[in-house]
Amino acid sequence: MAPRVGIVGAGQLAQMMAQSAISLALELVVLAEADGEPATRTGAEVLLGSADDPDALRRLAERVDVVTFDHEQVDPATLDALDADGHVVRPSGTVLRFSDKAHQRTHLGAAGFPVPAFAVATDDAAVEAFVHAHGPRIVAKAATGGYDGYGVFVIAGLDDLPADARPTIERPLVLEPLLTLERELSVLIARNPSGDHATYAVVDTIQRDGICNETMAPAHIPAELADEACALATAIADEVGSTGMLAVELFVTADGLLVNELAPRPHNSGHWTIEGAATSQFENHLRGVCDLPLGSAELRAPAVATVNVLGPADGSDPRHRLADALAVRDAHVHLYGKGARPGRKLGHVTATAADPDAALDRAWQAVERLTGETRPS
Amino acid sequence: MAPRVGIVGAGQLAQMMAQSAISLALELVVLAEADGEPATRTGAEVLLGSADDPDALRRLAERVDVVTFDHEQVDPATLDALDADGHVVRPSGTVLRFSDKAHQRTHLGAAGFPVPAFAVATDDAAVEAFVHAHGPRIVAKAATGGYDGYGVFVIAGLDDLPADARPTIERPLVLEPLLTLERELSVLIARNPSGDHATYAVVDTIQRDGICNETMAPAHIPAELADEACALATAIADEVGSTGMLAVELFVTADGLLVNELAPRPHNSGHWTIEGAATSQFENHLRGVCDLPLGSAELRAPAVATVNVLGPADGSDPRHRLADALAVRDAHVHLYGKGARPGRKLGHVTATAADPDAALDRAWQAVERLTGETRPS
Repeated sequence: MAPRVGIVGAGQLAQMMAQSAISLALELVVLAEADGEPATRTGAEVLLGSADDPDALRRLAERVDVVTFDHEQVDPATLDALDADGHVVRPSGTVLRFSDKAHQRTHLGAAGFPVPAFAVATDDAAVEAFVHAHGPRIVAKAATGGYDGYGVFVIAGLDDLPADARPTIERPLVLEPLLTLERELSVLIARNPSGDHATYAVVDTIQRDGICNETMAPAHIPAELADEACALATAIADEVGSTGMLAVELFVTADGLLVNELAPRPHNSGHWTIEGAATSQFENHLRGVCDLPLGSAELRAPAVATVNVLGPADGSDPRHRLADALAVRDAHVHLYGKGARPGRKLGHVTATAADPDAALDRAWQAVERLTGETRPS
Repeated sequence: MAPRVGIVGAGQLAQMMAQSAISLALELVVLAEADGEPATRTGAEVLLGSADDPDALRRLAERVDVVTFDHEQVDPATLDALDADGHVVRPSGTVLRFSDKAHQRTHLGAAGFPVPAFAVATDDAAVEAFVHAHGPRIVAKAATGGYDGYGVFVIAGLDDLPADARPTIERPLVLEPLLTLERELSVLIARNPSGDHATYAVVDTIQRDGICNETMAPAHIPAELADEACALATAIADEVGSTGMLAVELFVTADGLLVNELAPRPHNSGHWTIEGAATSQFENHLRGVCDLPLGSAELRAPAVATVNVLGPADGSDPRHRLADALAVRDAHVHLYGKGARPGRKLGHVTATAADPDAALDRAWQAVERLTGETRPS
């Protein structure tokens, strides 16, 4: 029989995995912080508990054949302990450690992958020294716990850091020069325990306030650069030993490609794969962690763009304007069923078209109807 | 807020509607005969009760904004009563009546649509007279309650009819000549209450034992015939006033197109639309019955084929062989989570390819791996 899959977290990524799981008749159990989270409304069995709680993770592991993740705010040591006790955890604690930016930069840099100049600061002096060497302004990122722009600071000195963000041994900061970016890319790779890969088209990502807000596939870059990005991402997937999806976010600089972040799970920059690829990142994540053959990652449209649906500033709920948005041809609306709050990710829209800019424009038309927000010019 | 939708029935069609409903954040309530039916495992609210029970239908209607269907084994008079009490039922009792083959033939024939020569028999004498006029062999179909080949008999006389299938006033038979069919087609049309349409590509359907077992899109027919089929189906959708999906099954004979059956809901011959069309029949059914704008029905691949996964004769469960099937490239496996019984519809496989025969071959490769059944030569 198909394996039972446990997902740590019950947000929109788990929700979209659950939609794929229904087609494959895979049984899911989600570890949710609260009833009503997106994936609790998909037929998955719901286990209430915190991803911080080793007992909750163990209860989840005991009910399923394989444990996987909707987010990486999990202690890798707890996962190692589960693994030692014979539970199957995919990706493993070893892979999850790469969500720690200090570990990632240090490990990948040592392995010869191109990473930005960096320092791991555990005290104030290290910050001052890095500003001195790379200033006037530098970027400081919380090594762990940051997401969607939280925990990232552009600073000219210690005074620009919030008091609770000062580096310590327990909470180090990763410091980087303020790079001049030509663009940002993301490469999504599905991988199974046998080491098989399926690599999706490289996408352009457009961040706003630290959130990956727009993606366009395929990226508008020369074929050689796309090949280089795919080869780099694939080599990283092998290096870290990922299973299921791995998102590799890359900077394009005058000096070439640099690795920005890794996310060992389905990723916001891969939502376009639901309509735009032969197999979605959500289905391939499940196939990967269940050690099933991976599906084709081929593009299925000339161009595909995705834009996030963020909660409008006035607190209104985009669900009220669904009918308007659905009138935009070839725009596919995905809502996560979450309560509206300003700036909260409530959904996304994917559109297909003959070229990436037309697809992005179409997706924005639907987003504007949902939220009132217009495409930045 | 988006409307709450009630579905009468909780089989695989309701399951696939539920997967679409999750993306649109529509809330579903399904009227299920038993817990564990496919759509009860999708996060929909479950109301246990029989579609035969007017009280159960009323309880469903009272919990939702619109009532729709996963099957048409429902008494139209009950639906009329709900409508009279202000409940929204889409499609209406009037549309559901067209599932009665006697009503359908009589009404469409009178309206000038091409239907086979037919008689509605309510006694034995009418059967003998029709055999005399159109024999040696004719087709007798139960006017209501038949599906997937049940209730259809090829007979040379009364003796060939099971005793309990003899026609009566209460249970008439529709009689037809045994037609020589060049092929069978299906046209799927989404329609909303405003009368907007979205018409999908005409598909070739291949029946086996009375079940629509294979479909190929687009149908391998001249463009003029495809246009004629679409125009005919669209005119029928308007005539019957369908909302949501309507499947129009057509015979191609030496005398041209004839209307075979209507199904006022998503249909087995439209499963290919999940991967093969811009908007699936399941999403468009929900959009139609909720009076939301319809999505594009455009083909998204050169050719798309679907083959049913039927329970193997040895009673084994195809879920055990999922990994083998997923190794077939560009084959999309859909399982309904139903217990395996010989001949039971347990799922389907859709494959895309450069031409319909190649797509069909690919879908069959995966089906063979799931069931051991091979493509008929």
